[in-house]
Amino acid sequence: MNRVETQFFELATEDRPFFLQSGESLACARLAYETYGRLNAARDNAILIFHALSGSQHAAGLNTEVPGTAGRWTDEVHVGWWDDFIGPGKGLDTDRFFVICVNYLGGCYGSTGPSSLDPRTGRPFGPRFPQLTMSDIVDSELALLDHLGIEVLHAVVGASIGGLLALSLVTRYPERVRTVIPFATAVRVTPLQRLHNFEQICAIEADPDFRGGDYSADRPPNRGLALARMIGHKTFVSLGAMEERARTEIVRRDGTLAWYQLRSSLESYMLHQGQKFVRRFDANTYLRILDAWNRFDLVREAVATDLVALFQRCRRHNYLVFTIDSDACYYPEEQAFLMEVLKKAGVNATRITVHSDKGHDSFLLEAHLYCPFLRAVLQG
Amino acid sequence: MNRVETQFFELATEDRPFFLQSGESLACARLAYETYGRLNAARDNAILIFHALSGSQHAAGLNTEVPGTAGRWTDEVHVGWWDDFIGPGKGLDTDRFFVICVNYLGGCYGSTGPSSLDPRTGRPFGPRFPQLTMSDIVDSELALLDHLGIEVLHAVVGASIGGLLALSLVTRYPERVRTVIPFATAVRVTPLQRLHNFEQICAIEADPDFRGGDYSADRPPNRGLALARMIGHKTFVSLGAMEERARTEIVRRDGTLAWYQLRSSLESYMLHQGQKFVRRFDANTYLRILDAWNRFDLVREAVATDLVALFQRCRRHNYLVFTIDSDACYYPEEQAFLMEVLKKAGVNATRITVHSDKGHDSFLLEAHLYCPFLRAVLQG
Repeated sequence: MNRVETQFFELATEDRPFFLQSGESLACARLAYETYGRLNAARDNAILIFHALSGSQHAAGLNTEVPGTAGRWTDEVHVGWWDDFIGPGKGLDTDRFFVICVNYLGGCYGSTGPSSLDPRTGRPFGPRFPQLTMSDIVDSELALLDHLGIEVLHAVVGASIGGLLALSLVTRYPERVRTVIPFATAVRVTPLQRLHNFEQICAIEADPDFRGGDYSADRPPNRGLALARMIGHKTFVSLGAMEERARTEIVRRDGTLAWYQLRSSLESYMLHQGQKFVRRFDANTYLRILDAWNRFDLVREAVATDLVALFQRCRRHNYLVFTIDSDACYYPEEQAFLMEVLKKAGVNATRITVHSDKGHDSFLLEAHLYCPFLRAVLQG
Repeated sequence: MNRVETQFFELATEDRPFFLQSGESLACARLAYETYGRLNAARDNAILIFHALSGSQHAAGLNTEVPGTAGRWTDEVHVGWWDDFIGPGKGLDTDRFFVICVNYLGGCYGSTGPSSLDPRTGRPFGPRFPQLTMSDIVDSELALLDHLGIEVLHAVVGASIGGLLALSLVTRYPERVRTVIPFATAVRVTPLQRLHNFEQICAIEADPDFRGGDYSADRPPNRGLALARMIGHKTFVSLGAMEERARTEIVRRDGTLAWYQLRSSLESYMLHQGQKFVRRFDANTYLRILDAWNRFDLVREAVATDLVALFQRCRRHNYLVFTIDSDACYYPEEQAFLMEVLKKAGVNATRITVHSDKGHDSFLLEAHLYCPFLRAVLQG
């Protein structure tokens, strides 16, 4: 497997701060990113990928070390999360395209975030890290594109909340992209998503180690973050299919729960997911992304009257919209609604539903279901 | 409104213990119950109602005081939870029927449970209260029926997990009932329900005040129990309808969360539900019911080969099955599955779907949707 290295872009310096939608600004902020393939001379073969909630800039190849990640760069993330999608001859063909993926601003994998040291105090930002919107994250990545001299993207691709970011980019900067590929995503936040996010926020806040976000690196709110991850994780998988598989598995007991005795491998699987997650993620980053997700409002952030008017800006784009039939995070209805909006706005769009028993996570696991269409649309 | 009083039945004494499915037994246990209407001379006009997860024996009329409830008998529960259903001329007509409702064994509204004093130690049972199954709860209520001299129930009625108990009773003691009325319930536990329950269990266990169940009455695990209630409560309401109504409401801020700023009245509503709940419920009781729910296995507890074989015992019963179209706790598919089983088993059953924007909670709020059918089936 190809070895890759994370690169860094100085997004902001004392004399060139980065301004956020809230009016606040960041001085001395950087973005961690990776690229695959080569930018051509015309600088018009770039594809920007937005990672999902707990993803990173490391989308393809092997990367065993990223500076400034304080032990969070665990074995689990050494192979890029979309390695089956990105490479020579793959869905995102690096023989033809220059693929870019950036750790969200506010992230914990090298981009400046709440766990970074605040140069003014020498301590982690913690709760003092400013609040972010999805637009802020998009704008920070556009600054990187400017730096790389990329005016127009061949395509922008995003799955899950990466799709929210992709749609934020293309509606606010329609002139900067040609092809738009939202996977398992939506143009809005459903009440159920908002509550799932809110429950996760409450789980983290309720952990006495959270200390309002001012926790120490030695004693982060692991129990709250693990519970939060469990609450979120159930929407990423297909519970029916998991239960089927789980029938033959043995329930592992551990010391997490004092009174309750684990009853099923579904329960021990979820506990395990939570415990694994806290080793590789920062609670303050997680909170910030959930917060931005809960406040996501495409129409307001792009200053439009409604969704149809907004997407009328996108008439020169070509859309490929993916649905996963068993998705319980972004239900198929959400992409049906997006298609309705695109149709009313007169935008050229194709929708493909893949059939999978893996739920929302299919977009991470089953490249063969997506790559034929990706190749066709990107090269066509 | 009629004043009613909770009555008590001595379920177990030192010389006559109550045995549980686990092999453990309880000495000195009592059940809190209420009755409405009069038992006729033939003792054949009794209807047993099973309350839901957080309900109580107090189903109708006004009851402002129940001994032994340690401040949990708040204003919120003074009016019976099914007062619109039970009374002269109502769906459960007390001019004709003798209606009985019992607080679950293990409960916190007067029946012996984890918050009761263990006579052997003089301290609350806490985590030492034995584990219960749904069958144990049913069996304890049958002991009360024996005590009241009721051999055959005119009907058994249960909504939500009260429905699980109703189905446990009628399949294990088919000769003791004529009419069976399950509301918004199922014959099995879905993977999603199991995970929702497990998340709630983890939320309570993660509260440092929980202390493995050995918390003091002065310092119960309120934060964990409130989060648990939020996680559960979202499945009881229709989020779409709530969001619609919530658009005009003001977001109330409070001091619960340190970092996160409440974004919507849906969030403040959920926080409020959690905070209100902890004033009236005991965390150990809540855990025990979730535990029994997660382990519920009708076929195993009734010692049958499969569901169809089990319900073949019920061929002399008459079933009225209610579905709520917007139910996100017991989805309509679950009652469709129950009907399939009943049909295959050759049992006489009618299913009615009510259309409501209130979700699962409709069974508590909209008597007018159910009472015409209740009356017809009970009196017909």
